[in-house]
Amino acid sequence: MGQPTATPAAKTHTARPTVIVEAPRLARKLGLDLVLATETFQHTGSFKFRATYHVVSHVPNPLVIAASSGNFGQAMAYACSLVGKQSIVVMPQTSARVKVNAVREYGGQVEFVDVRAKSRAARVAELAAEHPEAYIASAYDDPLVIEGNSSLGDELARLNRPLDVVVAPVGGGGLTSGIISGLRRAGKSLEVIGAEPLLGNDAARSLRAGHIVANESEPQTIADGARTVSVGIHNWPILKDGLGGIVEVPEENIARAVRMLFELANLKAEPTGALSVGALLTDPDRFRERRVCCVISGGNVDPAVYRELLDNP
Amino acid sequence: MGQPTATPAAKTHTARPTVIVEAPRLARKLGLDLVLATETFQHTGSFKFRATYHVVSHVPNPLVIAASSGNFGQAMAYACSLVGKQSIVVMPQTSARVKVNAVREYGGQVEFVDVRAKSRAARVAELAAEHPEAYIASAYDDPLVIEGNSSLGDELARLNRPLDVVVAPVGGGGLTSGIISGLRRAGKSLEVIGAEPLLGNDAARSLRAGHIVANESEPQTIADGARTVSVGIHNWPILKDGLGGIVEVPEENIARAVRMLFELANLKAEPTGALSVGALLTDPDRFRERRVCCVISGGNVDPAVYRELLDNP
Repeated sequence: MGQPTATPAAKTHTARPTVIVEAPRLARKLGLDLVLATETFQHTGSFKFRATYHVVSHVPNPLVIAASSGNFGQAMAYACSLVGKQSIVVMPQTSARVKVNAVREYGGQVEFVDVRAKSRAARVAELAAEHPEAYIASAYDDPLVIEGNSSLGDELARLNRPLDVVVAPVGGGGLTSGIISGLRRAGKSLEVIGAEPLLGNDAARSLRAGHIVANESEPQTIADGARTVSVGIHNWPILKDGLGGIVEVPEENIARAVRMLFELANLKAEPTGALSVGALLTDPDRFRERRVCCVISGGNVDPAVYRELLDNP
Repeated sequence: MGQPTATPAAKTHTARPTVIVEAPRLARKLGLDLVLATETFQHTGSFKFRATYHVVSHVPNPLVIAASSGNFGQAMAYACSLVGKQSIVVMPQTSARVKVNAVREYGGQVEFVDVRAKSRAARVAELAAEHPEAYIASAYDDPLVIEGNSSLGDELARLNRPLDVVVAPVGGGGLTSGIISGLRRAGKSLEVIGAEPLLGNDAARSLRAGHIVANESEPQTIADGARTVSVGIHNWPILKDGLGGIVEVPEENIARAVRMLFELANLKAEPTGALSVGALLTDPDRFRERRVCCVISGGNVDPAVYRELLDNP
């Protein structure tokens, strides 16, 4: 356990190309031309590996500390194992056992925090004091994260098909700022639209206000990858100029999008990953007759949660 | 409804390339080197389109009649719609509504048969008499089907990675005989192992007997794509010489394989599609330390059935 996998793709240490999935039945249902760019088959099951591998291979530190109960922690642990570095992932004591096990399987050391007694940030600060050699990693607010995620923008720019708009989830803004950066670098003037849970619509409110607006607390959306208090200060200038808009997706449309991806595209997506399709359901007029690429950001979802989602038509 | 989709990939009218999914967590669990070749994102969600498109574009008939309550009917309806032909799909009256709707959405005409009063074959014979211009299509026992499915063998032969063995489901033998044909044509001496439900193990018994052995009746395995009475006479000579063996997979390992693909590879597979991974669970010694490619033949499964499968750890 904890060893890098022996498959050839892993040995190359680079991100797997995003998987393009045609979805004509879903497209017909939605009345548009649609292609899915899914990161569910990326290393560790989400786009996060693009960022974490770029971070750990560009900082000199032998140890990386990250706070994450989800995809970022798994991706950081795996990326560190590939380059021979150590990782500590701070997780709430209440984290699902499968997520804790996944971090450990990828070679990460898990540090629990009782979030009723202490914040995750406080626990990270303690660990940082104990380990002055460590790099303290942010899941989104870091130029290296943006640069790592920009590889997805590169790939979308090279897609050999006409597109009008890319839709991708917004939490802290790491993914969308990366996509925008990659498309810009390629000289591609493709509109990028964010898909944000209505329950945590700080990025949409920030765009309206013209400055970063934060949620009062971590929003309790089912899209657990977008439970961020605000976008990052490194992400904001890119989003402010580069986003064509943000669709605020109600919880029921996130769930419906997960089901539609299952039924009409054979794709297992986690709720955060389905946000982009949820945006098409929420604001259909914005996308009608357009050639849309939806980024499905990840696929890691507990079987029990997924069963619930499939049960509500 | 019933119109060919407007996506560029559909306009080209050829099969989509199989999607290669790395599955290091699943591989580690199984103790081997593993890659998945998934047909779940093929047109109509299963490998069947490879065969149906080849059939309908090679026969002169303007109408095709097929008996199928599953993937073959959908694939036939869609292939006919692409080349401007008509299709009639004979389905039991008790077929799931979603499957009936899928055939109709792809442009097929559904003819119901009350299987308590009349066999599907008898209904097909009646329709054939009414429509002398029709081609009566078999899902597996047809050289054109084998030739169509051989395109997957071509693709596996061209995979740029070292492999020792390909594992694929066996029902009527259309898929495995196609894969063997494609690999042979490419001069590739890669072992091909069949994965068959133990409940309907006629192909395994046929290999042992040296001639085609039939099940007494349609086996009631959860792998509904493998509910065939025997392999076809066109498939048999290819399987007899070309298969390295058949693993007979108990129902519980089919279900376990569906769950493991969900949990460890983010892949939604139908029970028939998970047979190849079920074979690894059933006969691990045969595959240990080998470089294995599992063909996931399709992903079309009802949400209710899938929820059940996820519920049994």
